[in-house]
Amino acid sequence: MILGRVIGNIVSVVKDEKYNGIKLLVVQEMDIGGNYEKKYHISADLIGVGIDEIVMVVNGTPARSSEETKDKGLDSIIVAKIEVLIFKDRVVELH
Amino acid sequence: MILGRVIGNIVSVVKDEKYNGIKLLVVQEMDIGGNYEKKYHISADLIGVGIDEIVMVVNGTPARSSEETKDKGLDSIIVAKIEVLIFKDRVVELH
Amino acid sequence: MILGRVIGNIVSVVKDEKYNGIKLLVVQEMDIGGNYEKKYHISADLIGVGIDEIVMVVNGTPARSSEETKDKGLDSIIVAKIEVLIFKDRVVELH
Amino acid sequence: MILGRVIGNIVSVVKDEKYNGIKLLVVQEMDIGGNYEKKYHISADLIGVGIDEIVMVVNGTPARSSEETKDKGLDSIIVAKIEVLIFKDRVVELH
Amino acid sequence: MILGRVIGNIVSVVKDEKYNGIKLLVVQEMDIGGNYEKKYHISADLIGVGIDEIVMVVNGTPARSSEETKDKGLDSIIVAKIEVLIFKDRVVELH
Repeated sequence: MILGRVIGNIVSVVKDEKYNGIKLLVVQEMDIGGNYEKKYHISADLIGVGIDEIVMVVNGTPARSSEETKDKGLDSIIVAKIEVLIFKDRVVELH
Repeated sequence: MILGRVIGNIVSVVKDEKYNGIKLLVVQEMDIGGNYEKKYHISADLIGVGIDEIVMVVNGTPARSSEETKDKGLDSIIVAKIEVLIFKDRVVELH
Repeated sequence: MILGRVIGNIVSVVKDEKYNGIKLLVVQEMDIGGNYEKKYHISADLIGVGIDEIVMVVNGTPARSSEETKDKGLDSIIVAKIEVLIFKDRVVELH
Repeated sequence: MILGRVIGNIVSVVKDEKYNGIKLLVVQEMDIGGNYEKKYHISADLIGVGIDEIVMVVNGTPARSSEETKDKGLDSIIVAKIEVLIFKDRVVELH
Repeated sequence: MILGRVIGNIVSVVKDEKYNGIKLLVVQEMDIGGNYEKKYHISADLIGVGIDEIVMVVNGTPARSSEETKDKGLDSIIVAKIEVLIFKDRVVELH
């Protein structure tokens, strides 16, 4: 899984109907130093997060393995909000 | 999922017959600043989009999870037309 | 899917017997400007193509979704020969 | 599979309940020269490893193929602790 | 699939028991010019190869599609030893 910050959401009127009712957020990848990468994911939010929160994202086929996402054609989902990273020599609170 | 702009389509006479009737478009990836990446995808269009439209693309195995794409050998599909990106401090209309 | 040119083929005597009878070609990736990338794929040919032809390649698990490739352990297959790319402002014949 | 060093762990209060009871570690990728890459994975620990240990990580869908991980939505798991790398001309003990 | 050279093997005492009896080799990726890439894979050997041999590697979920690898959590397997690459204008013997 990777870490990223929720930076936005998208509006889509014309879409495959399977996507109705799914909240799609823009998540910008974060490296382990807390810096932001150029890479982003449009990810389905399964847990209820908001702008600026740090989240853990599952990508690829494993993103389909819950009841909510099965047969939905999703390749990226948000599965956890991350509060703290604990390294050997420091603790990083994410907010 | 990723965002991209539809920039073209492809013509193929000799192909695996499973691909008959599937519209294949060239989608150029877009970063979150709205700049275009070098990377592109040949993606199957499930919703009916046209040249220059901004779309959301599902890649990899999840691209097979709808009735239309099951057992089709597709690794990239267009599932939504994106009209607006909403960031914390600005709204970007895509057209 | 991605586009590439068939540039060679491989000879293998010692191999997993599932690969007997499968023609494996070297496909060099092409960007949308028609330039060649460093990246290549060893891809199974399902349609009968030859050296120098431009092809469309399916990568990853979707490469397993046809009768010929099921349970074969293939992560890359050639599914179409591409003759023409149609962009907004130009038509590119590939040969 | 890839090799990496366990450099930290993450704390998450708000998460999809499927992740309860799964220990998630931060693993930094290592190249074959033993240098660290920028890339990292948040990986589920199946075998019980600790900070600073060198581990082998399975990524993508194959990460779901054990009883513990099936239907869990995990795209990265730690499956082995690596003690020694044996090259043609040298042996590298990892610790 | 990709090509690479077998450059080493790994020793692991603490591991998920599914990996018992599987020979894991370090394979360094090779580009089509025969140069070595920084990228490597820890791959399960299904055919019996040795140090310095050039092999073809299947990555991702398709690596699980044989009897030996099903449900094993492997994302990379060695499926063929490659002896010769045939290009339009030259033949490269690999050894």
